[in-house]
Amino acid sequence: MDLRAFIRDVPDFPKPGVLFKDIMPLLGDPAAFGFAVAELAGHYPAGGIDVIAAAEARGFLFAAPMALALKKPLVPLRKPGKLPGETHSFKYDLEYGSAELHVHADAIRPGARVLVVDDVLATGGTMAAACKLIELAGGSVVGCAFLIELAFLNGRAPLVGYDIFSLLTY
Amino acid sequence: MDLRAFIRDVPDFPKPGVLFKDIMPLLGDPAAFGFAVAELAGHYPAGGIDVIAAAEARGFLFAAPMALALKKPLVPLRKPGKLPGETHSFKYDLEYGSAELHVHADAIRPGARVLVVDDVLATGGTMAAACKLIELAGGSVVGCAFLIELAFLNGRAPLVGYDIFSLLTY
Repeated sequence: MDLRAFIRDVPDFPKPGVLFKDIMPLLGDPAAFGFAVAELAGHYPAGGIDVIAAAEARGFLFAAPMALALKKPLVPLRKPGKLPGETHSFKYDLEYGSAELHVHADAIRPGARVLVVDDVLATGGTMAAACKLIELAGGSVVGCAFLIELAFLNGRAPLVGYDIFSLLTY
Repeated sequence: MDLRAFIRDVPDFPKPGVLFKDIMPLLGDPAAFGFAVAELAGHYPAGGIDVIAAAEARGFLFAAPMALALKKPLVPLRKPGKLPGETHSFKYDLEYGSAELHVHADAIRPGARVLVVDDVLATGGTMAAACKLIELAGGSVVGCAFLIELAFLNGRAPLVGYDIFSLLTY
C-alpha cells in the first residue's frame, strides 16, 4: 500500500516557508492506518522489546495500537502536571522557549528495553528528550519508530547512537 | 476481567481533596488495555457509526485502537494551532479560564454518525464541547464512550440527549 497517498502537503504551516506533512488523511482511512501500524509494529521482534513509550499527543495515536499489536505495556510521556504519581522529568529546548516531559517513576523497570514511537521525526528534539527521560528512569532505548521522517531537517543528528526506523522519508 | 484492579487511586491530585483515577496501570497491562478497547468497541455495532472522534491527548489512547477495531476513520479533535488545514472550532469554559477544540473542516461529512471517545467522564465539559464541535462540523453524535465515569461529578448533566456508555463507574 502506498501510504504517501494518505499524507497531505500543507504549505506555510506552522509558519511561512514550511511544508507541513499532515497525517489526518491517513488516520481517516482505517485500511491505511491499520497498514501503517502493522508495518511499524512488524519491524520489531516482540522478544526484543519490554515497553512502548510515546510523548503526547500524536505519538499516542500510533503507540497505543502498536502496544496492543505487540502485547507490550504502554507508557505515556506527558507534559508537566498531567501524571498524578511521582515522576522523572526532562526539560529540553524548543525553537521558542522550552518544554518538559514527565514519566511515572515506577513505569519503567531498571534495564527495561523501550521502543519510543512518534508520528513525525522533524528536528528530533522531542524524541531526543524522550530517550533521555527513559534512560533517566532506568530504561534502555532499543529503538525510535516514526511514521514519517523529514530527512532535510536532519533529525537524526540529536539521535546519534539510537536505532531509528521510519516508514516514510521525505 | 476486573478492570478496576488496573485503576489506581491517587489522593489529592490535581488538588487537595480530589481522588484522581489513574489509568496508567491499565495502559501498562496489554491484556487489560486490549480487553478495555474490545469491550468499548464491542458495545457499538459497526454499522451504526461512520467516524470515531477524540479530543487530545488521552482520548487518543482509546480512540486509535477502537477506530482500527471497528475499521472506522479516526478524527482527532485538537487544541488551537495544531491542525494545518481550515478548521471549525468551539470554545468552552473550564474551571479556570477557557479552552478551544478544533477539527478539520473537511474531516466530517454532512450527516456522518460520530462516536466520541475519551478516557474519563468527569464534569463533562470537554465531551460536551467535542459534541458541539462535531455538530458544528455537520456531524451527528451517536454516542459518547468512556473507560471511566466519575458519577459523583454529574458529568451527564451537560450531555443530556446524548447516548453515554462507560465501562467503569465510580
